[in-house]
Amino acid sequence: MRVAIQGEPGAFSDAAARQLLGEAVELVCCAENREVTRQLAAGGVHAAVLPIENSLAGSVFATYDAILAEPAIVAVGQTVLPIRHCVLGIPGATLGDLRTVESHPVALAQCRAFLETHPHLVAHATHDTAGSARLVRAAGDRSRAAIASAHAARVYDLAVLAAGVEDRPDNRTRFLLLRSTRDAPGAAPAAPGGAPPGAPAQTMLVYTTANVPGALLRTLEPLAERGMNMVRIESRPAGEPWTYQFIVEFEHTADPSAVQAVIAAIAPHTRGVRHVGTFARAAAAG
Amino acid sequence: MRVAIQGEPGAFSDAAARQLLGEAVELVCCAENREVTRQLAAGGVHAAVLPIENSLAGSVFATYDAILAEPAIVAVGQTVLPIRHCVLGIPGATLGDLRTVESHPVALAQCRAFLETHPHLVAHATHDTAGSARLVRAAGDRSRAAIASAHAARVYDLAVLAAGVEDRPDNRTRFLLLRSTRDAPGAAPAAPGGAPPGAPAQTMLVYTTANVPGALLRTLEPLAERGMNMVRIESRPAGEPWTYQFIVEFEHTADPSAVQAVIAAIAPHTRGVRHVGTFARAAAAG
Repeated sequence: MRVAIQGEPGAFSDAAARQLLGEAVELVCCAENREVTRQLAAGGVHAAVLPIENSLAGSVFATYDAILAEPAIVAVGQTVLPIRHCVLGIPGATLGDLRTVESHPVALAQCRAFLETHPHLVAHATHDTAGSARLVRAAGDRSRAAIASAHAARVYDLAVLAAGVEDRPDNRTRFLLLRSTRDAPGAAPAAPGGAPPGAPAQTMLVYTTANVPGALLRTLEPLAERGMNMVRIESRPAGEPWTYQFIVEFEHTADPSAVQAVIAAIAPHTRGVRHVGTFARAAAAG
Repeated sequence: MRVAIQGEPGAFSDAAARQLLGEAVELVCCAENREVTRQLAAGGVHAAVLPIENSLAGSVFATYDAILAEPAIVAVGQTVLPIRHCVLGIPGATLGDLRTVESHPVALAQCRAFLETHPHLVAHATHDTAGSARLVRAAGDRSRAAIASAHAARVYDLAVLAAGVEDRPDNRTRFLLLRSTRDAPGAAPAAPGGAPPGAPAQTMLVYTTANVPGALLRTLEPLAERGMNMVRIESRPAGEPWTYQFIVEFEHTADPSAVQAVIAAIAPHTRGVRHVGTFARAAAAG
């Protein structure tokens, strides 16, 4: 099974893809999140795995935008991984030798306290945690380090100069498993993917509201009336300045007809509702 | 008047500061948004100006986090600037000479179409649009360009190789004017800053809700009941995984007692409401 991720072998997305789909996945590594969903929509891969949210850094806009740009992909599953960052350098180097650390900006944002207490280190943003490890290895420069996983240290034969440099030890990232509506008719929005009836499920919807007072509120009331807990609301620019696409996630017990009823109740207050997917709730996402 | 901004002379934040406070401002240029609010809270500057939202790239998380980290600063005003990006190179260079373009990641995100149609250009993220122009000038390398304003081209003596490279010509950024509660008692949260009674005003609140179904909805109902239009809702991680601080902005006619009444109605559903500020609505923000 070919699975697109953003990043390189040894990235946290690699670990998430294996957890969701098994060790036999064939990774298709992309530089950008947008390229991941483009490949999926074009049929170049069977599935994709992208980080949607980190417990310290918040929403991953690049993933939201990559999903919004491709109407024919659906979210069919999710997983939450603990994220433990390490400072990886050339074997033999010490923290004192370092001048720069490089990593994905979301990873750097999770290590703010470490960077503030090591002001001699200049942080450089890159495309990927594991890709940074590869570049540090290739350069062979003792003054350069990457922030990436301990697994990436093994993949790229680097030394762990400091471990657990994330700001909180309970640092976690939630990843979505995405399919194409063409390849995964059984995972189409109308059916909850992987959540048997009655099981804890979660649904993601996207819509734009009319620009009138209370319009967004009226789209949330159908959830509250049914005791469905909205767990996330995110907004992304919809084109015209100061118009937004809202991305809402709510928890419920798996029941396709209940989800369809909520969508029908919300729709009149929007310019159309996209059902991105319904999938099993992630235990660790609590 | 000393005013802290993120970025360097010639940055869009420089133009926003001059529009809000006049040409006589003395800029204090910071590399990070967080440093801007730290300086303001410590009394090192009289005011600060930070971008909160771009119409193409969306919310500026770094500004939200910088405000959330300093409880003793208040928002007292806002302005909206049109953002027109140019590709700036060494005089004599052409687009065909270029190999890399560098700019702030939010600026790069606003020029996605241009970058996709010029795949030979590798984009590098930097701290600042104007700072990138300065670096390109200093390097004197005809293969390097910055994405920044036409004003930055004049400041740093660079050539405009392409103008209007943003994805939409109506690209705009909204900037907040921030003061310290100590230096600006007249601008303290209880009083609408700069909006006379009855004028179009806008209020920003921050709170964390209890983690029970419908809790966020109950904090929004007091706005809808009063016909106040919620124009923004943003969430940022609150510490514990999957807990959030919600940042809500709503429009109303300036009336301090009405704002206090809304806060009193919302508070029981939260762990405390921070009134970040009430300020005049920006005409161009629609």
